[in-house]
Amino acid sequence: MPDNVPNDLIPLRERIDELDRRFVELLAERNELVAQVADVKRRSGFPIRDSSREGQMLEDRRTLGVKDGIRPEVVESLFRVILWASRDRQAALRAAVPIHVDPRRIAIIGGNGGMGRCLEKMFLDQGHQVLIADVDTTLTPKEAAEQADATVISVPIRSTREVIELVGPACGEDSLLLDVTSIKSDPVEAMVNSTSANVIGTHPLFGPAINSLQGQRVVMTPARLHDGEWESWLHSSFKAAGLEVIQSTPEKHDRIMSVVQVLTHYSTEVIGRTMQALDVSIAESLQFTSPIYHMELLMAARHFAQSPDLYSAIEMSNPNTEAVTSAFTRAAEEMRSLIISGDQDGFRDTFGEVRDFFGEFSKTALVESSYLIDRLVERT
Amino acid sequence: MPDNVPNDLIPLRERIDELDRRFVELLAERNELVAQVADVKRRSGFPIRDSSREGQMLEDRRTLGVKDGIRPEVVESLFRVILWASRDRQAALRAAVPIHVDPRRIAIIGGNGGMGRCLEKMFLDQGHQVLIADVDTTLTPKEAAEQADATVISVPIRSTREVIELVGPACGEDSLLLDVTSIKSDPVEAMVNSTSANVIGTHPLFGPAINSLQGQRVVMTPARLHDGEWESWLHSSFKAAGLEVIQSTPEKHDRIMSVVQVLTHYSTEVIGRTMQALDVSIAESLQFTSPIYHMELLMAARHFAQSPDLYSAIEMSNPNTEAVTSAFTRAAEEMRSLIISGDQDGFRDTFGEVRDFFGEFSKTALVESSYLIDRLVERT
Repeated sequence: MPDNVPNDLIPLRERIDELDRRFVELLAERNELVAQVADVKRRSGFPIRDSSREGQMLEDRRTLGVKDGIRPEVVESLFRVILWASRDRQAALRAAVPIHVDPRRIAIIGGNGGMGRCLEKMFLDQGHQVLIADVDTTLTPKEAAEQADATVISVPIRSTREVIELVGPACGEDSLLLDVTSIKSDPVEAMVNSTSANVIGTHPLFGPAINSLQGQRVVMTPARLHDGEWESWLHSSFKAAGLEVIQSTPEKHDRIMSVVQVLTHYSTEVIGRTMQALDVSIAESLQFTSPIYHMELLMAARHFAQSPDLYSAIEMSNPNTEAVTSAFTRAAEEMRSLIISGDQDGFRDTFGEVRDFFGEFSKTALVESSYLIDRLVERT
Repeated sequence: MPDNVPNDLIPLRERIDELDRRFVELLAERNELVAQVADVKRRSGFPIRDSSREGQMLEDRRTLGVKDGIRPEVVESLFRVILWASRDRQAALRAAVPIHVDPRRIAIIGGNGGMGRCLEKMFLDQGHQVLIADVDTTLTPKEAAEQADATVISVPIRSTREVIELVGPACGEDSLLLDVTSIKSDPVEAMVNSTSANVIGTHPLFGPAINSLQGQRVVMTPARLHDGEWESWLHSSFKAAGLEVIQSTPEKHDRIMSVVQVLTHYSTEVIGRTMQALDVSIAESLQFTSPIYHMELLMAARHFAQSPDLYSAIEMSNPNTEAVTSAFTRAAEEMRSLIISGDQDGFRDTFGEVRDFFGEFSKTALVESSYLIDRLVERT
């Protein structure tokens, strides 16, 4: 913007450019070392992430930085990005993929959808063969399942049961049938009832638009296993892609998801609908924004940029939605009447009860959210 | 965690440690250059932030990185932290503080509170003299105001009017009376009615716990000015501290804050209260978390770690709270009945209306929120 750059500034800027070039060179050099690390890890089966090493590294770099007068938050923020990029690169270099993979033939039903593509890439990366069956492929879902060692159901929630009932009987008894639906009780029941194959429900806790699988999570709910082979195969395939695997049951999964997904999506929808009803000027509000509002606004607008059918299916099909949404509307009325009546004491008591509920977690939350707020402020 | 570190890994780790040491050395070298930049900027009055230079720098470093096979997101994330740290350091080195400051005597009423301390530091940094008056100081608010060139009211919202009415008459006609309350109509009216001094309302859009003032915002609502001197003094004091200044009127401020603050705080309280009512296990839910839920949970727990009296005052005193909270409870009922009745078409239509409302902003939101999600995932 300012074009009257002072003369004294120009040589300093040139030196900074030169220094940053060395910075990028160091990054490239580091990348070379990380490639060698990935190679050792692949050959030895040593995991990509070694949390104790990461903790030591951060502590060591912070200390070095402080000696040189650099704020520890700055050093830590930088090295967190570097470590994250390093893990991501190791995964891309297949550091966690066993050297001797027994190649399997995997059918992905709904393989042309976002999640289907994401799974295809993951399996191909690991040296498997992938068959895609979708509404527009010549290969039918049944044919794909007949030919496959493992069949993945990756279709919209509302079609899941129907597709499972079509495909299940075509799966060989020694094969694996798995789904990736956001709810688990109903699809897992449908799979168990429609096939004699091994059955594992899964739920990837991320969308296909994610930049990297590194550090993302997937839930596994094994339902029928003739032996342990398929479970350990699937588990190590997920780990090899950099995912954290959480073992659970369909019922527990659905109960927790009524908060993690239903409450989160529903409350975001209520906020978005309220803003629309109030006809808020987004541009004006952004001018006056606090970092907290900015973050809420980003999360709300992000939500509405995505698929209404996916969200309605998640919210409508969870068995606990009734309880969650009625607790929410009750809380909304309760807080509203405390505020409108100006009941300071009642507000303070209610606030205190919720604070006690969050307990020690509040302290972690303050630190973690302050970090995110800094990252948001640095972009604006 | 794993203690069976493969032998081949050890020399690689040593080389990475060595390389990271050079990394930190480069940062220190860069810090030296930034100090010289700060000096030039201070002498020339050139602003700390030069957005066009920053844009060029990011573009240039991304391109350099890509040539070396480094993902552009990684290079950009790193240099965003570096640029942010650079601006922060320039502000700490007083790059935006004019060399010749006419020292003023500033009274801070409520100067021992969090925001009072924050303002004290800001004014002292700029070479002014600060008088603190609080409930536990020998110096009374009236005495402080009588002796001061500018008097800042930094007390809890509920005491603001009372303190203004006490202190206002003690301010000299040529002096400045300002407040830092989260609402503006009522305190500004009280100031104008109780003093013949210059009057400016302000609202810092951040809490005192913030790591750095760099890039944070403050609203200014000038109300009575005998001439332009105090307004430009206050404006440049805020800018010198690295703050963005937004000019407004008390009424416009309060209307926008009914969304930026009231809706944000109220909806967070409803979510927290709902989770408490459902007796959600936070530990369990975190195990199954998606990044979105994790972020919402952090923001909720953060909220309840703070002062109930501050929030109830903000929510209870805004003239638009009634409209905002009733729009919210209506939206909650509306979304709930669409979901409970399984009305997919109605849900899709409503969702579409809100999407249209967010319009183009959704695209920005997807990019910005994905960046934040990556930053959250890299920490977990």
